[in-house]
Amino acid sequence: MHDVAMFTPGPTHIPLAMRMASISRLTHHRSPEFTKLHDRIHSGLQSLFATGGRILMLPASGTGAMEAVVANVVEPDDTVLVLAAGKYGRRWAELCRTYRADVRLHEVPDGATFDAAAVERALRDARPRHLFLTHCETSTGAVHDVRTLAALGREYGATVVADTMTSIAVEPFHMDDWGVDFAVTASHKGLMSPPGAAFVAVGDQAWERVRPAQGYSYWNFHILRASALESTVPNTPPTTTLFAVGAALDAIEAEGLTQVWERHARSAAVCRAGVGALGLELFPRSAPSNALTAVRLPERVRTDGLVEELHHRFGFRVAGGQGGLKGRIVRVGHIGAVTPLQLMPVLTALEMLLLERGLDRRPGTASAAMAGELWDGLAPGRAA
Amino acid sequence: MHDVAMFTPGPTHIPLAMRMASISRLTHHRSPEFTKLHDRIHSGLQSLFATGGRILMLPASGTGAMEAVVANVVEPDDTVLVLAAGKYGRRWAELCRTYRADVRLHEVPDGATFDAAAVERALRDARPRHLFLTHCETSTGAVHDVRTLAALGREYGATVVADTMTSIAVEPFHMDDWGVDFAVTASHKGLMSPPGAAFVAVGDQAWERVRPAQGYSYWNFHILRASALESTVPNTPPTTTLFAVGAALDAIEAEGLTQVWERHARSAAVCRAGVGALGLELFPRSAPSNALTAVRLPERVRTDGLVEELHHRFGFRVAGGQGGLKGRIVRVGHIGAVTPLQLMPVLTALEMLLLERGLDRRPGTASAAMAGELWDGLAPGRAA
Repeated sequence: MHDVAMFTPGPTHIPLAMRMASISRLTHHRSPEFTKLHDRIHSGLQSLFATGGRILMLPASGTGAMEAVVANVVEPDDTVLVLAAGKYGRRWAELCRTYRADVRLHEVPDGATFDAAAVERALRDARPRHLFLTHCETSTGAVHDVRTLAALGREYGATVVADTMTSIAVEPFHMDDWGVDFAVTASHKGLMSPPGAAFVAVGDQAWERVRPAQGYSYWNFHILRASALESTVPNTPPTTTLFAVGAALDAIEAEGLTQVWERHARSAAVCRAGVGALGLELFPRSAPSNALTAVRLPERVRTDGLVEELHHRFGFRVAGGQGGLKGRIVRVGHIGAVTPLQLMPVLTALEMLLLERGLDRRPGTASAAMAGELWDGLAPGRAA
Repeated sequence: MHDVAMFTPGPTHIPLAMRMASISRLTHHRSPEFTKLHDRIHSGLQSLFATGGRILMLPASGTGAMEAVVANVVEPDDTVLVLAAGKYGRRWAELCRTYRADVRLHEVPDGATFDAAAVERALRDARPRHLFLTHCETSTGAVHDVRTLAALGREYGATVVADTMTSIAVEPFHMDDWGVDFAVTASHKGLMSPPGAAFVAVGDQAWERVRPAQGYSYWNFHILRASALESTVPNTPPTTTLFAVGAALDAIEAEGLTQVWERHARSAAVCRAGVGALGLELFPRSAPSNALTAVRLPERVRTDGLVEELHHRFGFRVAGGQGGLKGRIVRVGHIGAVTPLQLMPVLTALEMLLLERGLDRRPGTASAAMAGELWDGLAPGRAA
């Protein structure tokens, strides 16, 4: 039996400190302890989103938070522009259609990023009321230039909504400075906690884009805000998960947010070095995310069952491709508690499996390259 | 510092076995381990709901599951009959209004139950497409006769939807035999687990009452069913919480569901005995639930801050009243892992506080009455 190590791009590894925090006490959500926990998470997440706006907490997965934003900002027949380059970008479009928006989909191939001039043309043509973005496209491993894209959206008067699920506490994100109105994340990504809590950051100026109350609903931001102002939530929250989030915020603050971003960048650089040394290609055409490394599976060797075998024989859980990318890519997550050194055994195990299946490399190729990258990163004055 | 003991009617105490189960392993929801966990929970909940129907699992609080049912069965302008005798009954009406139903509210005072003849008249008048019920009205402590009410609804051709949040694994409930189409519960009630997972049981015949797919949505039962048929869920589930639910189902099966119901009945009887001996009245006018004992606060003594003081000085967390019942009742939960003997210190602490505030009783009155009730329950041949 292996104690499974999670190198998936969410849910991610939950360090023992967060697991213990989640179960070491019980509380009721109508209590002073919960108020304290609420406020600690509220201010901690304001720092991570880099916003002075309000953080709404939902008992939901990340998709629930996405639907909540759509339910609260999209009115029927609103023109919305969705930038999609993978599964999660397209999810915004699906949700907006369900809420009967007039959806203009600006789509580029999976793994690609967006050309700012083309996006500006799309904005000029559509004059959308809302613009939907994805920061890290978890299905492809690409990171999108939200800063530039949000500025364009703002320029054309659109509400800017960003899926920052896999980028919060992973990559630099500056909600207020970049002009993002709504951003969402969940507990089981950079927050290193169990899945079950989702968060929506609402910019101070963004409230005027929230629809008037449509009656009682689980997603209703007016109800959520009224509770948040009283340091609580309207429905029973996943308290054990929120205790873990509180502990994760402590850990992130102790390490320093900039240092956390740098660690993710180093992990990503080290992982990419190993992949490159094996002669494998990254899936994203440019701008690979620091959250995960999506690797194109080689066509020369048999790769069926690779992800499962990595788990059964070596105890590492990585992710395969989703939807149309199933069987075409492997996604190695390095989110949250992962350190660059911890990635060496994962890539070495992957190397072993590929060698068995006929990849022509000397054993240790990946780890040697990774150690080299680490060494370069450590030496002062050299490029990381 | 007290290790807080939860005697609230949800969230409830989480035994160490369930807490440990929740954190002792990590898994991804696209994995054979998760398939196993899904199927274990699915069959376990089928037993608890007493249905051959399908169990849908949602990352949500109980209210999320309620909204999910409404979103999936209520079409605009559908006539719905809602039976309400407290906060949670009225919640069905609020949700149905949000989904633009023509809501007929059959309301009785908080704490009362329903007269079958009056309900039948309401059904005859309204001829509703759907009937919404509450099994245990957690805000008042009354249990409603779902068996009779569901049969009436069925007779008049209505879809029968029951909130069984606080009754599953607490009071007898027989979904298929009673003719209930949809029933909902959540992880943090009789399932003794952290909050964060909600469950909807859908009777086999009930699928014809589910609206055709309205597009991609977090609540969409068609999407949830397609995943359930493959032993998984569409969105990242609260896996740690589900491991706890799995452990809770093991514990419930080991004890025996009938024995679990009997234990709750004994706890309730013992708690009521203590309350009665203190000269206090139950809030429900009839049919007090076995999930919680709602006690009318005496008018003769000062009761402000009573719930908070019980927590600070004695470490017991009970609940006050909600909404209009705030300051008027105290609710002592005896759901899940609670045993009759564990209630003695709680009622004794409450007794101490009331004595200090001027209640005229001999110290030990509550516990003596509770011990007497326990004794009667233990003796074979005597009434429990």
